[in-house]
Amino acid sequence: MDYLKIFSPATIANVSCGFDSLGLAVDEIGDEMTFVKTPQKGVEITNITGAELTYDVDKNAASAVVKKMLLDAKADFGIQLTMHKGYFPGSGLGSSAASSAGAAFGANQLLGKPYSNLELTKFAMFGEEVACRSQIADNVAAAIYGGFVLIRSYQPLEVVKLPVPNELRLVAIHPQIEVRTEDARNVLPKEIALKDAVTQWANVGGLISGLYSNNYELISNSLKDVIVEPHRKKLIPFFDEVKSAAIKAGALGAGISGSGPTIFALCKGDEITEQVYNAIEKSYRNKNIDFEMYTSKVNKEGIKIIN
Amino acid sequence: MDYLKIFSPATIANVSCGFDSLGLAVDEIGDEMTFVKTPQKGVEITNITGAELTYDVDKNAASAVVKKMLLDAKADFGIQLTMHKGYFPGSGLGSSAASSAGAAFGANQLLGKPYSNLELTKFAMFGEEVACRSQIADNVAAAIYGGFVLIRSYQPLEVVKLPVPNELRLVAIHPQIEVRTEDARNVLPKEIALKDAVTQWANVGGLISGLYSNNYELISNSLKDVIVEPHRKKLIPFFDEVKSAAIKAGALGAGISGSGPTIFALCKGDEITEQVYNAIEKSYRNKNIDFEMYTSKVNKEGIKIIN
Repeated sequence: MDYLKIFSPATIANVSCGFDSLGLAVDEIGDEMTFVKTPQKGVEITNITGAELTYDVDKNAASAVVKKMLLDAKADFGIQLTMHKGYFPGSGLGSSAASSAGAAFGANQLLGKPYSNLELTKFAMFGEEVACRSQIADNVAAAIYGGFVLIRSYQPLEVVKLPVPNELRLVAIHPQIEVRTEDARNVLPKEIALKDAVTQWANVGGLISGLYSNNYELISNSLKDVIVEPHRKKLIPFFDEVKSAAIKAGALGAGISGSGPTIFALCKGDEITEQVYNAIEKSYRNKNIDFEMYTSKVNKEGIKIIN
Repeated sequence: MDYLKIFSPATIANVSCGFDSLGLAVDEIGDEMTFVKTPQKGVEITNITGAELTYDVDKNAASAVVKKMLLDAKADFGIQLTMHKGYFPGSGLGSSAASSAGAAFGANQLLGKPYSNLELTKFAMFGEEVACRSQIADNVAAAIYGGFVLIRSYQPLEVVKLPVPNELRLVAIHPQIEVRTEDARNVLPKEIALKDAVTQWANVGGLISGLYSNNYELISNSLKDVIVEPHRKKLIPFFDEVKSAAIKAGALGAGISGSGPTIFALCKGDEITEQVYNAIEKSYRNKNIDFEMYTSKVNKEGIKIIN
């Protein structure tokens, strides 16, 4: 294989109750990337569209990942890559993760697939470190494995792929404001009440049970975040209004995607999804803040080869 | 139905990572109780064996539950009950829960089964309040539902029954020392580090995933408690030694049953279970502390009618 074009999905980290542990992949939002084998060694970015990102191969998350993998695999060839960003960086939808995970996936294909998904996740985490100075796994693992993932452990890294009920859909609204990941981290308390932690892990347990048993009511009841959302929602204008509009329109739950500002809602079936989309759109229409909206299935298979 | 004899199982609350959220029922340890319909209204305890408990119907957890249910159902009959305690109260194996849950189950049968398992759990929680001054659900729900249960929420009460892998076995050792539930509560911090809470809920997620997917390695990796065990183990002599002996002998994991002092280990298959039993027995043999040991399957169906 000398050429590859892929789709690398946007991802929603945390998914309400699962701060730093849960992620899910989005089916219809993401980046496209191409990879071309070259006789000369090393990595080069030949084109970036859709966003302004650096071409410096050590500072761009995607090329940094490819470079590391080519070295690790002692490849006797190089890779030229192009990136088309399909959505805005800084949205909280795992933009750098889509690049990093896509890069790991693409390079692995051209190398003859020597690496497991777990190893690809580790390479992609290196990309996250280049982009965000933090080795976070939830977004990249969701992009690579697809569906819902649980990061059971970081040391050693253990990723659990969870099942996705068939009718699960999502709606996302990205208000065009900046929430710096650093601010989103700093707003969190270092210590939390044990009783709140119990509530949270019971919800993590409930959400995962609901995913395995196709129990939408249980999923809905469990999509609650008593730890992170109360602090981070202050960074997102009209969060409560959006969430309440989504729930009223029938969403299973709504919360902050990653560190925000994107707000996501999970829904059962296409009809309710459309109602929730409309309700959220209506709730933001006159706020004098630009926004993008998305609706999608949950991506089940992760990064896809387009051709 | 005018007469009923039941077996009400011992239970293990918390199950390492799931403090105040998870419980499981034990198959081969528990109480036997009989229930006889009487023309005169009200409840009476006619015999208690195996432990010294009060015959005062308002202070005995079992009779208090039966009394409440007879009133709630406006029954035109009464119930005489006997209790044979099959294991020691104060062990951390849900002794009062076995009585309370058994009472709720038995009374429901004689009443013609008007109540759901969730309602029985609520009645049994009243028994827990009588016995322990605390409306705790994890033990009683495990006894009533059987298998593993998740208390997803208390307000409103929501119990999720989780699957039990076929080869799952347990070993328990009850050192004959007293750990007061109050002390076991007081030793816990009110606040915990967010990063520890993340570790814990990822483990709750991993354990539940492992139960659904029959993944013993994942179950094993997830049977960790970074929140409660570090504090409570100080109340249990030689806890670390027992745990380490169990793990070395092949246990999936080991931890404190409820508020202790019983230490449990989960194992895969009968052969390893026997090895773990022997290893734990050996580790406690010369400690000058009396102890009881148990080995059992995980009870899957909860309280059973014997005749």
